[in-house]
Amino acid sequence: MSLNSFGHILRMTTFGESHGVMIGAVLDGCPPNISLSEDDIQPWLDRRKPGQSRHTTQRAEEDKIEIVSGIFEGKTTGTPIGLIIHNQDQRSKDYSKIKDKFRPGHADYTYFMKYGNRDYRGGGRSSARETAMRVACGAVADKILRHYLGAQYQIYAGLVQMGALKLPENNRNWLERINDFNCPSHAFAEKCANYLDGVRKRGSSVGAILECHAIGIPVGLGAPIYGKLSADLASALMSINAVKGVEIGDGFATAALHGEDNADIMRENNGQVEFLSNHAGGILGGISTGQPIITRMVVKPTSSILIEQPTINDKMENTTIITTGRHDPCVGIRAVPIMEAMVALVLADHYLMAL
Amino acid sequence: MSLNSFGHILRMTTFGESHGVMIGAVLDGCPPNISLSEDDIQPWLDRRKPGQSRHTTQRAEEDKIEIVSGIFEGKTTGTPIGLIIHNQDQRSKDYSKIKDKFRPGHADYTYFMKYGNRDYRGGGRSSARETAMRVACGAVADKILRHYLGAQYQIYAGLVQMGALKLPENNRNWLERINDFNCPSHAFAEKCANYLDGVRKRGSSVGAILECHAIGIPVGLGAPIYGKLSADLASALMSINAVKGVEIGDGFATAALHGEDNADIMRENNGQVEFLSNHAGGILGGISTGQPIITRMVVKPTSSILIEQPTINDKMENTTIITTGRHDPCVGIRAVPIMEAMVALVLADHYLMAL
Amino acid sequence: MSLNSFGHILRMTTFGESHGVMIGAVLDGCPPNISLSEDDIQPWLDRRKPGQSRHTTQRAEEDKIEIVSGIFEGKTTGTPIGLIIHNQDQRSKDYSKIKDKFRPGHADYTYFMKYGNRDYRGGGRSSARETAMRVACGAVADKILRHYLGAQYQIYAGLVQMGALKLPENNRNWLERINDFNCPSHAFAEKCANYLDGVRKRGSSVGAILECHAIGIPVGLGAPIYGKLSADLASALMSINAVKGVEIGDGFATAALHGEDNADIMRENNGQVEFLSNHAGGILGGISTGQPIITRMVVKPTSSILIEQPTINDKMENTTIITTGRHDPCVGIRAVPIMEAMVALVLADHYLMAL
Amino acid sequence: MSLNSFGHILRMTTFGESHGVMIGAVLDGCPPNISLSEDDIQPWLDRRKPGQSRHTTQRAEEDKIEIVSGIFEGKTTGTPIGLIIHNQDQRSKDYSKIKDKFRPGHADYTYFMKYGNRDYRGGGRSSARETAMRVACGAVADKILRHYLGAQYQIYAGLVQMGALKLPENNRNWLERINDFNCPSHAFAEKCANYLDGVRKRGSSVGAILECHAIGIPVGLGAPIYGKLSADLASALMSINAVKGVEIGDGFATAALHGEDNADIMRENNGQVEFLSNHAGGILGGISTGQPIITRMVVKPTSSILIEQPTINDKMENTTIITTGRHDPCVGIRAVPIMEAMVALVLADHYLMAL
Repeated sequence: MSLNSFGHILRMTTFGESHGVMIGAVLDGCPPNISLSEDDIQPWLDRRKPGQSRHTTQRAEEDKIEIVSGIFEGKTTGTPIGLIIHNQDQRSKDYSKIKDKFRPGHADYTYFMKYGNRDYRGGGRSSARETAMRVACGAVADKILRHYLGAQYQIYAGLVQMGALKLPENNRNWLERINDFNCPSHAFAEKCANYLDGVRKRGSSVGAILECHAIGIPVGLGAPIYGKLSADLASALMSINAVKGVEIGDGFATAALHGEDNADIMRENNGQVEFLSNHAGGILGGISTGQPIITRMVVKPTSSILIEQPTINDKMENTTIITTGRHDPCVGIRAVPIMEAMVALVLADHYLMAL
Repeated sequence: MSLNSFGHILRMTTFGESHGVMIGAVLDGCPPNISLSEDDIQPWLDRRKPGQSRHTTQRAEEDKIEIVSGIFEGKTTGTPIGLIIHNQDQRSKDYSKIKDKFRPGHADYTYFMKYGNRDYRGGGRSSARETAMRVACGAVADKILRHYLGAQYQIYAGLVQMGALKLPENNRNWLERINDFNCPSHAFAEKCANYLDGVRKRGSSVGAILECHAIGIPVGLGAPIYGKLSADLASALMSINAVKGVEIGDGFATAALHGEDNADIMRENNGQVEFLSNHAGGILGGISTGQPIITRMVVKPTSSILIEQPTINDKMENTTIITTGRHDPCVGIRAVPIMEAMVALVLADHYLMAL
Repeated sequence: MSLNSFGHILRMTTFGESHGVMIGAVLDGCPPNISLSEDDIQPWLDRRKPGQSRHTTQRAEEDKIEIVSGIFEGKTTGTPIGLIIHNQDQRSKDYSKIKDKFRPGHADYTYFMKYGNRDYRGGGRSSARETAMRVACGAVADKILRHYLGAQYQIYAGLVQMGALKLPENNRNWLERINDFNCPSHAFAEKCANYLDGVRKRGSSVGAILECHAIGIPVGLGAPIYGKLSADLASALMSINAVKGVEIGDGFATAALHGEDNADIMRENNGQVEFLSNHAGGILGGISTGQPIITRMVVKPTSSILIEQPTINDKMENTTIITTGRHDPCVGIRAVPIMEAMVALVLADHYLMAL
Repeated sequence: MSLNSFGHILRMTTFGESHGVMIGAVLDGCPPNISLSEDDIQPWLDRRKPGQSRHTTQRAEEDKIEIVSGIFEGKTTGTPIGLIIHNQDQRSKDYSKIKDKFRPGHADYTYFMKYGNRDYRGGGRSSARETAMRVACGAVADKILRHYLGAQYQIYAGLVQMGALKLPENNRNWLERINDFNCPSHAFAEKCANYLDGVRKRGSSVGAILECHAIGIPVGLGAPIYGKLSADLASALMSINAVKGVEIGDGFATAALHGEDNADIMRENNGQVEFLSNHAGGILGGISTGQPIITRMVVKPTSSILIEQPTINDKMENTTIITTGRHDPCVGIRAVPIMEAMVALVLADHYLMAL
């Protein structure tokens, strides 16, 4: 069964493994006559790129995007957009110590049991390396939305919790979100830095929560039953490596609310609808309301840690493992543009369906 | 765009509105030669049926299932299984008071803005009435899993939080889950009863959290990238009316964990793999581990309440609304079999893909 | 695998067997606010109905269509259109003589070998009874095209060859196509009548070729590679029972043509493009040209004949069979509205994609 | 809408234009642990390669395939197989004479009207260059079938008619099919050579009919209604550039047959089913019978000819055009491996569905 594609009519198919010659994607369904070049995509990839501070993995990946099809004279033609990144950091690391061991928390065991083989070089297809292509396709989706919706449309995500450190909702300043932690508060970023230094130094890792806002999205995107905007967003975000939970609007907090407190009251304002609150996160009955689309996701702590752990090998024998190498102590930082990309892809897909 | 289907190779398509002559579903992709009759499905629908206690809506819906195709001499034939339920409670209620008003928290406004029309009789297609067909198809999915996996396989969900009342993890007794609240603790059900009586009497409503366990699911179901078992579960659950959040395993709690605490250590036990914990909820890298598949979802408080609320009408004028009628004060109770059905559908779909 | 659906965004899913309680279809993706009632559909079904002359099967099927969802106050709502026909002619015929024998030319053997079971009552799902739902959905597709394209759009098919009798291209009069043979020439219909009387009386059957014209279809429907309008038409027509060949435009005759003879020259005419010929059948590079879309298909002779034939049974033993009962001596007559329906479905699907 | 993919569970997505940097494909759904290398694919591409005799275009395309993902240690891993070919013959030809003119018989006009843009360099996406990726994916499909079915399985196509020259059915010798015309008779190939020399020298072109046999295909592939093996083959073949007609088995000739002549009688032979004929081309009711799968398709004469033709330009003005350059006088020769590839893809797809 072929399950390497995502989207209804704007459809991304990715290919490639962490240690192959390249990773790539085909983005099919992009409308014609939208101006597009590598310059629209590269900044997105640069935000995901490792090694931008001491807080992320020090692997060297330039992640230079090449558009190999779908563009003529600077504009999309309506044909599939081919995107590739040549892998650079394929140094022939010595895998002999771990090649037959299943790393706890990773897909090693499940992948081996499902397919009967295993690419031990960094996880192969299961590696988060694949998310680079999501970011590249998400940048195109962002360009599509911008083409149709103009400057009213914006998308921005940020880290709002790391470990036990939570950034309160009333302290978020989205203008400050460009920092080493991609979090909407420079002050909170500093707290995270101190905290993560400790985590990293003891060879551990930690989880995080990210939040994304998409503004300027018109009312009417989505569908009432199975293509609900909320369901497609949930699928999109849960498909990102390490994600274990997804919320729309107030999410799990709505369990404790009463009907009258959770209702987003509509009032007329100059002939337009105005909502007095946004508990629903901009989605009612699976369809966008015109308010900001608000999603949250949690990423578990990085499974690759420098602490020795018991595990088994592919002969089902007990052993131990240390996953040395260069790993992110918190994948939540670099996951910020991935979250934006997946949300942009879902929104562009539904926008094109509603055209 | 046609978005009324769900599933990859076991594919459910539903049709019908809350006040039409019938609701129905076509379940395509069911393997041949599995014994199946209405008796396999009706008990599932009976658990979702309204009016079973004072805590759910008093609407009278018998929800009698009819299998109209796909069965010959008591067994599936491999052809699409047609399922219908004739609507009974179509009493010509007077809708004149609300037919042009948008109910807060409902899909009325978004549906009207998207489609330019509105079935004001109970929400039409957006009504939770559609979930009866999910339950019917889920019962078939459950039969398929039982056919292949035998008695080791079981699925059970329960209400584990209502409003601020939480059932602690170590107090759950799944053998006690048959009660007015479908919650795995008779004691907790009693607490809920007292609490919900108060909520109902003042015309309000409240949210809830539900948890589902699927046991006896083999290792290897799912896919590494976009058909991740976790992503399909997230889509399945988020597509249920009123759901605003989904978790797999430890979910949002993993944000605060460190790598060494979150790892589910594998050990050899009599030649078999044994996991020492299940933070991952039975899914690693999008593929099942062989452990219980654990999911959670939150349902927001019922939007239809007996308390007057401000709103607008379809001429974009300010007005007020009271949604009288018979509504569930907490949709979490009747959502339990719906959750089980959606999880069973995803698992059966992936099981058949892995065959 | 679920393969009972057809179409990209206007998607028909059918269910039901020849001798079940009903056959049905769900047509998903129909735009909202198009007026639609049973009266739009029934005339299409009446044209397919058996027993309208001595030249078709004398089975009694009223084929009364019921729309059970997707319509409110006389208009489509954008939700799935549920369509059902209750089977009437389920008389408990005695199948004991043939229930374990494989009818030559039928799907009996292949179906049994694939699924390991067999609905011996008239072929079950493999029966041409399913085509009634195609005609019903095709009538809706026709209504959709009419809604958007107005009176310029028309679709009409007809029988143009029966056995060795061919209606020359320059003798077709589409205004005469309403006759016992659905062929565009009353004179040719008379010849067919004489011919088919002989075929029928000796218990035999004969094949036929049908041709369909869709006019008023705008330029630009289709896609350059895999969703070619021509490829989707080929799939649509080849999926009809008994069809063994499909042509677009000049079809197989183009093998003998030279490039300069096959080219449809374009000239300017009052600022518009005018084609001087239509060898291409209105499709170039998979995309409609604005000219009439012309397709042809061949139906093999009915496999159910009154002549005894050798065959095997489900124990792989040699035996003989006579398929008594009421069968069409030439399925090409009643296949005319089915052909129109399938073409209309493809065109409406592509029209909605191009909107 | 994204329509650049083909297949149900073995799914090929292609990208790239005739004059871009590369063309490529992603083949998703290939089972793991099948040995595969470029050496399995290159011979297929070499058969399609131009310039192998004076009878095909003299363009220089080496068409060297690179597998960029999906393989580890010489075997498929179950992840998507990325395939690319760098374009070599991008010489900056002077397009100024034709860049605003619509070539008759080509997709220039329809593509421009649909997308509002045009890649005048050789047709861009509409070029038959894309078929190189079909051949590459077809070679993988062939390897998959060989892996499961062994040496009993074979696929071979050949040219059986060129212009008015027809190779009689009883004169075909498939062992002789390797010649300049890919036709199953050296004697017939010689006749074609003489004929085509004349056609080429006067700057014209001619159509052809191709026939394909797939043997060793087990009973039970396909589906009864919309995923009929015949319908998927029709779609596959009709999606090839220049194809205007498709037949299964006796195809259009069945119109003139009577039921008793068209029936493929089954007899028991050593406990096995034996068919006494194969009018059905190995498919009954959309499902394979175990006999050879026989298909035929017609390709129209090449539209690019050296004879001046009237046409219009993109300002809708009358003009004339000569499409100089290097073109195949009969595309039927190089279409032979393309036909085999598309048939192999359909059969492998259905084989994997039936596993």
